[in-house]
Amino acid sequence: MGQVKVELSMSLDGFVAGPNPSLEEPLGAGGERLHEWVVRLASWRAPHGLEGGETGPDDDIFAESLASTRAVVMGRKMFSGGSGPWADDPKADGWWGDDPPFHAPVFVVTHHEREPLELQGGTTFHFVTDGVAAAVERARAAAGDRDVLIAGGADVAQQALRDGLLDEVQVNVAPILLGSGTRLFGDGAHGAVERIRAIDAPDVTHLTYRVRA
Amino acid sequence: MGQVKVELSMSLDGFVAGPNPSLEEPLGAGGERLHEWVVRLASWRAPHGLEGGETGPDDDIFAESLASTRAVVMGRKMFSGGSGPWADDPKADGWWGDDPPFHAPVFVVTHHEREPLELQGGTTFHFVTDGVAAAVERARAAAGDRDVLIAGGADVAQQALRDGLLDEVQVNVAPILLGSGTRLFGDGAHGAVERIRAIDAPDVTHLTYRVRA
Repeated sequence: MGQVKVELSMSLDGFVAGPNPSLEEPLGAGGERLHEWVVRLASWRAPHGLEGGETGPDDDIFAESLASTRAVVMGRKMFSGGSGPWADDPKADGWWGDDPPFHAPVFVVTHHEREPLELQGGTTFHFVTDGVAAAVERARAAAGDRDVLIAGGADVAQQALRDGLLDEVQVNVAPILLGSGTRLFGDGAHGAVERIRAIDAPDVTHLTYRVRA
Repeated sequence: MGQVKVELSMSLDGFVAGPNPSLEEPLGAGGERLHEWVVRLASWRAPHGLEGGETGPDDDIFAESLASTRAVVMGRKMFSGGSGPWADDPKADGWWGDDPPFHAPVFVVTHHEREPLELQGGTTFHFVTDGVAAAVERARAAAGDRDVLIAGGADVAQQALRDGLLDEVQVNVAPILLGSGTRLFGDGAHGAVERIRAIDAPDVTHLTYRVRA
Protein backbone atom coordinates (compact mmCIF):
# COMPACT_ATOMS: atom_id res chain seq x y z
CA MET A 1 0.00 0.00 0.00
CA GLY A 2 1.37 3.41 -0.89
CA GLN A 3 1.80 6.31 1.49
CA VAL A 4 -0.05 9.60 1.59
CA LYS A 5 2.51 12.37 1.81
CA VAL A 6 2.69 16.10 2.08
CA GLU A 7 5.87 17.73 0.82
CA LEU A 8 6.07 21.49 1.04
CA SER A 9 8.76 24.15 1.15
CA MET A 10 8.51 26.35 4.22
CA SER A 11 10.39 29.43 5.35
CA LEU A 12 12.23 29.18 8.66
CA ASP A 13 9.41 31.23 10.19
CA GLY A 14 6.77 28.78 9.00
CA PHE A 15 5.27 30.21 5.82
CA VAL A 16 4.55 28.43 2.52
CA ALA A 17 3.62 31.69 0.77
CA GLY A 18 4.32 35.33 1.44
CA PRO A 19 1.80 38.13 1.91
CA ASN A 20 -0.31 39.82 -0.78
CA PRO A 21 -0.43 37.26 -3.61
CA SER A 22 -0.97 38.82 -7.00
CA LEU A 23 -0.81 37.97 -10.68
CA GLU A 24 2.87 38.91 -10.69
CA GLU A 25 3.63 37.12 -7.42
CA PRO A 26 1.18 34.24 -7.04
CA LEU A 27 3.13 32.98 -4.03
CA GLY A 28 3.04 36.38 -2.39
CA ALA A 29 5.85 38.81 -1.67
CA GLY A 30 9.07 36.83 -1.52
CA GLY A 31 7.28 33.50 -1.84
CA GLU A 32 9.10 32.45 -5.00
CA ARG A 33 12.30 32.25 -2.96
CA LEU A 34 10.88 29.20 -1.20
CA HIS A 35 11.19 27.30 -4.46
CA GLU A 36 14.50 28.56 -5.74
CA TRP A 37 16.15 25.36 -4.56
CA VAL A 38 13.83 23.15 -6.58
CA VAL A 39 13.53 24.92 -9.93
CA ARG A 40 17.24 24.58 -10.56
CA LEU A 41 17.28 20.80 -10.06
CA ALA A 42 17.76 18.36 -12.94
CA SER A 43 14.89 16.23 -11.63
CA TRP A 44 12.56 19.25 -11.62
CA ARG A 45 13.62 20.42 -15.05
CA ALA A 46 13.14 17.07 -16.79
CA PRO A 47 9.34 16.72 -16.26
CA HIS A 48 9.01 20.39 -17.26
CA GLY A 49 10.69 19.55 -20.57
CA LEU A 50 13.94 21.33 -19.72
CA GLU A 51 17.47 20.00 -19.98
CA GLY A 52 20.33 20.31 -17.53
CA GLY A 53 20.10 21.38 -13.94
CA GLU A 54 21.82 20.64 -10.65
CA THR A 55 22.38 17.23 -9.16
CA GLY A 56 23.19 16.41 -5.53
CA PRO A 57 21.25 15.68 -2.34
CA ASP A 58 18.39 18.08 -3.12
CA ASP A 59 18.02 16.51 -6.53
CA ASP A 60 18.11 12.99 -5.11
CA ILE A 61 15.28 13.83 -2.72
CA PHE A 62 13.14 15.41 -5.39
CA ALA A 63 13.79 12.59 -7.85
CA GLU A 64 12.91 10.02 -5.19
CA SER A 65 9.62 11.76 -4.53
CA LEU A 66 8.78 11.95 -8.23
CA ALA A 67 9.55 8.28 -8.73
CA SER A 68 7.36 7.15 -5.84
CA THR A 69 4.38 9.40 -6.60
CA ARG A 70 1.58 8.02 -8.73
CA ALA A 71 -1.28 10.41 -7.91
CA VAL A 72 -1.53 14.00 -6.72
CA VAL A 73 -4.08 15.92 -4.64
CA MET A 74 -4.26 19.71 -4.69
CA GLY A 75 -6.60 22.54 -3.79
CA ARG A 76 -8.47 24.62 -6.32
CA LYS A 77 -6.26 27.67 -5.89
CA MET A 78 -3.17 25.64 -6.65
CA PHE A 79 -4.90 24.26 -9.73
CA SER A 80 -6.12 27.57 -11.02
CA GLY A 81 -3.09 29.65 -10.22
CA GLY A 82 -2.00 30.43 -6.71
CA SER A 83 -4.03 32.72 -4.53
CA GLY A 84 -4.28 35.46 -7.10
CA PRO A 85 -7.49 37.24 -8.05
CA TRP A 86 -8.16 34.99 -11.05
CA ALA A 87 -8.27 32.02 -8.67
CA ASP A 88 -11.90 32.90 -8.01
CA ASP A 89 -12.92 31.89 -11.52
CA PRO A 90 -14.10 28.29 -11.13
CA LYS A 91 -13.86 27.70 -14.86
CA ALA A 92 -10.24 28.76 -15.15
CA ASP A 93 -8.18 26.08 -16.83
CA GLY A 94 -5.32 26.47 -14.45
CA TRP A 95 -1.90 27.75 -15.14
CA TRP A 96 -0.21 24.45 -15.76
CA GLY A 97 -0.16 24.71 -19.54
CA ASP A 98 -0.89 21.97 -22.09
CA ASP A 99 1.69 19.56 -20.70
CA PRO A 100 1.66 19.84 -16.91
CA PRO A 101 4.63 18.47 -14.97
CA PHE A 102 2.66 15.88 -12.99
CA HIS A 103 2.39 13.09 -15.57
CA ALA A 104 -0.16 11.47 -13.26
CA PRO A 105 -3.79 11.86 -12.25
CA VAL A 106 -4.37 15.01 -10.18
CA PHE A 107 -7.40 15.25 -7.89
CA VAL A 108 -8.46 18.86 -7.38
CA VAL A 109 -10.56 19.66 -4.28
CA THR A 110 -13.18 22.16 -5.41
CA HIS A 111 -16.78 23.20 -4.91
CA HIS A 112 -17.42 23.27 -8.66
CA GLU A 113 -18.41 20.12 -10.52
CA ARG A 114 -16.58 19.69 -13.76
CA GLU A 115 -15.63 17.00 -16.27
CA PRO A 116 -12.08 15.66 -16.05
CA LEU A 117 -9.50 17.70 -17.96
CA GLU A 118 -7.13 15.43 -19.84
CA LEU A 119 -3.92 17.10 -20.94
CA GLN A 120 -0.68 15.95 -22.54
CA GLY A 121 1.93 13.77 -20.94
CA GLY A 122 -0.35 11.70 -18.75
CA THR A 123 -1.78 14.46 -16.58
CA THR A 124 -5.53 14.38 -16.08
CA PHE A 125 -7.16 16.77 -13.61
CA HIS A 126 -10.16 15.26 -11.81
CA PHE A 127 -12.44 17.60 -9.88
CA VAL A 128 -13.64 16.30 -6.53
CA THR A 129 -16.51 18.14 -4.85
CA ASP A 130 -16.96 16.07 -1.70
CA GLY A 131 -13.91 17.11 0.27
CA VAL A 132 -10.28 16.39 0.96
CA ALA A 133 -10.87 12.89 2.36
CA ALA A 134 -12.74 11.87 -0.79
CA ALA A 135 -9.98 13.30 -3.00
CA VAL A 136 -7.33 11.39 -1.05
CA GLU A 137 -9.41 8.21 -1.29
CA ARG A 138 -9.72 8.51 -5.06
CA ALA A 139 -6.01 9.28 -5.34
CA ARG A 140 -5.14 6.23 -3.23
CA ALA A 141 -7.19 4.04 -5.55
CA ALA A 142 -5.42 5.53 -8.57
CA ALA A 143 -1.96 5.21 -7.00
CA GLY A 144 -2.14 1.50 -6.16
CA ASP A 145 1.02 0.54 -4.34
CA ARG A 146 2.73 3.84 -5.07
CA ASP A 147 2.32 7.12 -3.18
CA VAL A 148 -0.19 9.94 -3.11
CA LEU A 149 1.37 13.38 -2.95
CA ILE A 150 -0.65 16.19 -1.45
CA ALA A 151 0.95 19.07 -3.32
CA GLY A 152 -0.81 21.94 -1.52
CA GLY A 153 -1.94 24.43 -0.69
CA ALA A 154 -1.54 24.74 3.02
CA ASP A 155 -5.29 24.53 3.66
CA VAL A 156 -5.55 21.12 1.99
CA ALA A 157 -2.41 19.90 3.78
CA GLN A 158 -3.68 21.11 7.15
CA GLN A 159 -7.04 19.48 6.68
CA ALA A 160 -5.42 16.19 5.69
CA LEU A 161 -3.29 16.37 8.84
CA ARG A 162 -6.23 17.19 11.11
CA ASP A 163 -8.38 14.46 9.57
CA GLY A 164 -5.73 11.77 10.01
CA LEU A 165 -5.29 11.19 6.27
CA LEU A 166 -1.50 11.59 6.23
CA ASP A 167 1.23 9.01 6.60
CA GLU A 168 4.21 11.31 6.11
CA VAL A 169 5.03 14.98 6.08
CA GLN A 170 8.21 16.34 4.52
CA VAL A 171 9.05 19.94 5.27
CA ASN A 172 11.74 21.54 3.13
CA VAL A 173 12.99 24.36 5.32
CA ALA A 174 14.29 27.24 3.18
CA PRO A 175 16.75 29.70 4.76
CA ILE A 176 14.51 32.74 4.52
CA LEU A 177 12.16 34.67 6.77
CA LEU A 178 8.94 35.77 5.05
CA GLY A 179 7.45 37.63 8.01
CA SER A 180 3.84 37.00 7.06
CA GLY A 181 1.70 35.11 4.58
CA THR A 182 0.25 31.61 4.66
CA ARG A 183 1.51 29.26 7.36
CA LEU A 184 2.13 25.59 6.65
CA PHE A 185 0.93 24.65 10.11
CA GLY A 186 -2.03 26.58 11.38
CA ASP A 187 -3.60 26.01 14.73
CA GLY A 188 -5.31 22.79 15.63
CA ALA A 189 -2.95 19.90 14.76
CA HIS A 190 -2.12 17.94 17.89
CA GLY A 191 0.03 14.99 18.76
CA ALA A 192 3.40 13.44 18.28
CA VAL A 193 5.13 12.73 15.01
CA GLU A 194 8.05 10.42 14.50
CA ARG A 195 11.17 11.77 12.89
CA ILE A 196 12.20 9.61 9.94
CA ARG A 197 15.15 11.62 8.69
CA ALA A 198 16.67 15.04 8.32
CA ILE A 199 18.78 15.71 5.25
CA ASP A 200 20.98 18.75 5.31
CA ALA A 201 21.28 19.78 1.69
CA PRO A 202 23.38 22.82 0.80
CA ASP A 203 20.63 25.41 1.32
CA VAL A 204 17.48 23.62 2.30
CA THR A 205 17.02 21.14 5.15
CA HIS A 206 14.56 18.35 4.44
CA LEU A 207 12.75 17.13 7.55
CA THR A 208 10.63 14.01 7.13
CA TYR A 209 8.22 12.75 9.79
CA ARG A 210 5.87 9.83 10.08
CA VAL A 211 2.50 10.99 11.29
CA ARG A 212 1.20 8.67 13.97
CA ALA A 213 -2.30 7.46 13.31
CA MET B 1 34.03 39.22 19.78
CA GLY B 2 31.38 36.79 20.95
CA GLN B 3 28.14 36.02 19.16
CA VAL B 4 24.60 36.84 20.19
CA LYS B 5 22.54 33.68 19.88
CA VAL B 6 19.01 32.49 20.32
CA GLU B 7 18.54 28.79 21.02
CA LEU B 8 15.00 27.59 21.49
CA SER B 9 13.10 24.33 21.22
CA MET B 10 10.18 24.53 18.82
CA SER B 11 7.44 22.11 17.88
CA LEU B 12 7.22 21.09 14.23
CA ASP B 13 4.26 23.45 13.91
CA GLY B 14 6.26 26.39 15.23
CA PHE B 15 5.40 26.78 18.90
CA VAL B 16 7.77 27.31 21.85
CA ALA B 17 4.95 26.91 24.38
CA GLY B 18 1.51 25.34 24.30
CA PRO B 19 -1.81 27.01 25.07
CA ASN B 20 -3.18 28.00 28.48
CA PRO B 21 -0.09 28.31 30.68
CA SER B 22 -0.80 27.70 34.35
CA LEU B 23 1.00 27.08 37.62
CA GLU B 24 0.96 23.35 36.87
CA GLU B 25 1.96 23.78 33.23
CA PRO B 26 4.02 26.98 32.92
CA LEU B 27 4.86 26.06 29.31
CA GLY B 28 1.21 25.52 28.45
CA ALA B 29 -0.60 22.32 27.54
CA GLY B 30 1.96 19.88 26.17
CA GLY B 31 4.77 22.46 26.29
CA GLU B 32 7.00 20.44 28.59
CA ARG B 33 7.38 17.88 25.82
CA LEU B 34 9.46 20.44 23.91
CA HIS B 35 12.17 20.06 26.52
CA GLU B 36 12.08 16.32 27.16
CA TRP B 37 15.16 15.93 24.99
CA VAL B 38 17.22 18.35 27.05
CA VAL B 39 16.35 17.50 30.65
CA ARG B 40 17.71 13.99 30.25
CA LEU B 41 21.13 15.12 29.00
CA ALA B 42 24.28 14.80 31.11
CA SER B 43 25.27 18.36 30.17
CA TRP B 44 21.90 19.70 31.35
CA ARG B 45 21.93 17.72 34.60
CA ALA B 46 25.43 18.79 35.69
CA PRO B 47 24.73 22.56 36.07
CA HIS B 48 21.49 21.63 37.84
CA GLY B 49 23.52 19.65 40.38
CA LEU B 50 22.37 16.26 39.10
CA GLU B 51 24.52 13.27 38.18
CA GLY B 52 24.25 10.95 35.21
CA GLY B 53 22.26 11.58 32.07
CA GLU B 54 22.48 10.80 28.39
CA THR B 55 25.43 11.53 26.14
CA GLY B 56 25.44 11.68 22.34
CA PRO B 57 24.85 14.35 19.68
CA ASP B 58 22.12 16.20 21.62
CA ASP B 59 24.40 16.31 24.64
CA ASP B 60 27.36 17.52 22.56
CA ILE B 61 25.29 20.41 21.19
CA PHE B 62 24.00 21.46 24.58
CA ALA B 63 27.45 21.18 26.18
CA GLU B 64 28.96 23.25 23.38
CA SER B 65 26.40 25.97 23.94
CA LEU B 66 26.99 26.00 27.68
CA ALA B 67 30.74 26.22 27.24
CA SER B 68 30.53 29.14 24.82
CA THR B 69 27.94 31.15 26.77
CA ARG B 70 29.14 33.77 29.21
CA ALA B 71 26.03 35.93 29.65
CA VAL B 72 22.30 35.37 29.30
CA VAL B 73 19.36 37.62 28.34
CA MET B 74 15.77 36.69 29.19
CA GLY B 75 12.35 38.24 29.49
CA ARG B 76 10.64 38.93 32.78
CA LYS B 77 8.17 36.07 32.44
CA MET B 78 10.99 33.62 31.96
CA PHE B 79 12.69 35.03 35.03
CA SER B 80 9.63 34.98 37.24
CA GLY B 81 8.15 31.71 36.11
CA GLY B 82 6.85 31.12 32.66
CA SER B 83 3.65 32.75 31.53
CA GLY B 84 1.71 31.71 34.61
CA PRO B 85 -0.47 34.05 36.63
CA TRP B 86 2.26 34.77 39.20
CA ALA B 87 4.41 36.16 36.39
CA ASP B 88 2.56 39.45 36.86
CA ASP B 89 4.18 40.03 40.23
CA PRO B 90 7.16 42.29 39.46
CA LYS B 91 8.75 41.50 42.81
CA ALA B 92 8.65 37.73 42.40
CA ASP B 93 12.08 36.24 42.96
CA GLY B 94 11.76 33.93 40.05
CA TRP B 95 11.49 30.19 40.09
CA TRP B 96 15.15 29.43 39.59
CA GLY B 97 15.91 28.60 43.23
CA ASP B 98 18.97 29.57 45.28
CA ASP B 99 21.47 28.10 42.83
CA PRO B 100 20.21 28.76 39.28
CA PRO B 101 21.67 26.74 36.43
CA PHE B 102 23.14 29.70 34.54
CA HIS B 103 26.36 30.26 36.49
CA ALA B 104 26.68 33.55 34.64
CA PRO B 105 25.20 37.04 34.68
CA VAL B 106 21.59 37.09 33.48
CA PHE B 107 20.06 40.30 32.13
CA VAL B 108 16.29 40.37 32.65
CA VAL B 109 14.27 42.70 30.40
CA THR B 110 11.59 44.24 32.63
CA HIS B 111 9.65 47.43 33.27
CA HIS B 112 10.44 47.31 37.00
CA GLU B 113 13.66 48.77 38.38
CA ARG B 114 15.31 46.56 40.90
CA GLU B 115 18.71 45.95 42.50
CA PRO B 116 20.73 43.03 41.12
CA LEU B 117 19.91 39.66 42.69
CA GLU B 118 23.09 37.72 43.40
CA LEU B 119 22.55 34.02 43.97
CA GLN B 120 24.79 31.00 44.44
CA GLY B 121 27.01 29.46 41.81
CA GLY B 122 27.87 32.62 39.93
CA THR B 123 24.37 33.59 38.76
CA THR B 124 23.44 37.24 39.23
CA PHE B 125 20.19 38.55 37.80
CA HIS B 126 20.44 42.14 36.55
CA PHE B 127 17.21 43.99 35.77
CA VAL B 128 17.27 46.13 32.63
CA THR B 129 14.45 48.62 32.16
CA ASP B 130 15.47 50.25 28.89
CA GLY B 131 14.69 47.47 26.45
CA VAL B 132 16.02 44.38 24.72
CA ALA B 133 18.81 46.19 22.85
CA ALA B 134 20.13 47.65 26.11
CA ALA B 135 20.02 44.22 27.78
CA VAL B 136 21.92 42.67 24.89
CA GLU B 137 24.48 45.47 25.02
CA ARG B 138 25.09 44.94 28.72
CA ALA B 139 25.32 41.19 28.20
CA ARG B 140 27.84 41.65 25.39
CA ALA B 141 30.00 43.76 27.66
CA ALA B 142 29.80 41.08 30.35
CA ALA B 143 30.49 38.23 27.92
CA GLY B 144 33.70 39.61 26.45
CA ASP B 145 34.87 37.27 23.73
CA ARG B 146 32.35 34.58 24.63
CA ASP B 147 28.70 34.39 23.61
CA VAL B 148 25.47 35.97 24.74
CA LEU B 149 22.56 33.54 24.88
CA ILE B 150 19.06 34.92 24.51
CA ALA B 151 17.22 32.24 26.46
CA GLY B 152 13.66 33.42 25.77
CA GLY B 153 10.85 33.92 25.77
CA ALA B 154 9.68 34.18 22.22
CA ASP B 155 8.84 37.89 22.52
CA VAL B 156 12.42 38.79 23.48
CA ALA B 157 13.82 36.54 20.76
CA GLN B 158 11.51 38.04 18.14
CA GLN B 159 12.39 41.57 19.11
CA ALA B 160 16.12 40.79 18.98
CA LEU B 161 15.61 39.35 15.51
CA ARG B 162 13.57 42.31 14.26
CA ASP B 163 16.04 44.80 15.72
CA GLY B 164 19.06 43.16 14.10
CA LEU B 165 20.68 42.20 17.41
CA LEU B 166 21.19 38.52 16.57
CA ASP B 167 24.15 36.77 15.00
CA GLU B 168 22.81 33.22 15.17
CA VAL B 169 19.57 31.40 15.72
CA GLN B 170 19.43 27.72 16.64
CA VAL B 171 16.04 26.05 16.42
CA ASN B 172 15.72 22.66 18.08
CA VAL B 173 12.79 21.10 16.23
CA ALA B 174 10.94 18.64 18.48
CA PRO B 175 8.78 15.94 16.85
CA ILE B 176 5.48 17.12 18.25
CA LEU B 177 2.54 19.22 17.12
CA LEU B 178 1.21 21.58 19.79
CA GLY B 179 -1.64 23.04 17.75
CA SER B 180 -1.62 26.42 19.44
CA GLY B 181 0.29 28.49 21.97
CA THR B 182 3.22 30.87 21.57
CA ARG B 183 5.02 30.88 18.23
CA LEU B 184 8.79 31.21 18.02
CA PHE B 185 8.49 33.27 14.88
CA GLY B 186 5.68 35.76 14.81
CA ASP B 187 5.00 38.05 11.95
CA GLY B 188 7.40 40.74 10.89
CA ALA B 189 10.86 39.17 10.53
CA HIS B 190 12.09 39.57 6.98
CA GLY B 191 15.13 38.57 5.04
CA ALA B 192 17.47 35.74 4.30
CA VAL B 193 19.38 33.69 6.82
CA GLU B 194 22.37 31.51 6.08
CA ARG B 195 22.25 27.86 7.08
CA ILE B 196 25.27 26.95 9.17
CA ARG B 197 24.40 23.37 10.00
CA ALA B 198 21.62 20.89 10.64
CA ILE B 199 22.28 18.12 13.13
CA ASP B 200 19.91 15.21 13.09
CA ALA B 201 19.94 13.91 16.66
CA PRO B 202 17.80 10.91 17.56
CA ASP B 203 14.60 12.86 18.28
CA VAL B 204 15.30 16.50 17.79
CA THR B 205 16.79 18.20 14.73
CA HIS B 206 19.03 21.17 15.50
CA LEU B 207 18.96 23.83 12.77
CA THR B 208 21.49 26.62 13.09
CA TYR B 209 21.44 29.76 10.95
CA ARG B 210 23.56 32.86 10.72
CA VAL B 211 21.38 35.93 10.65
CA ARG B 212 22.57 38.32 8.01
CA ALA B 213 23.08 41.82 9.29
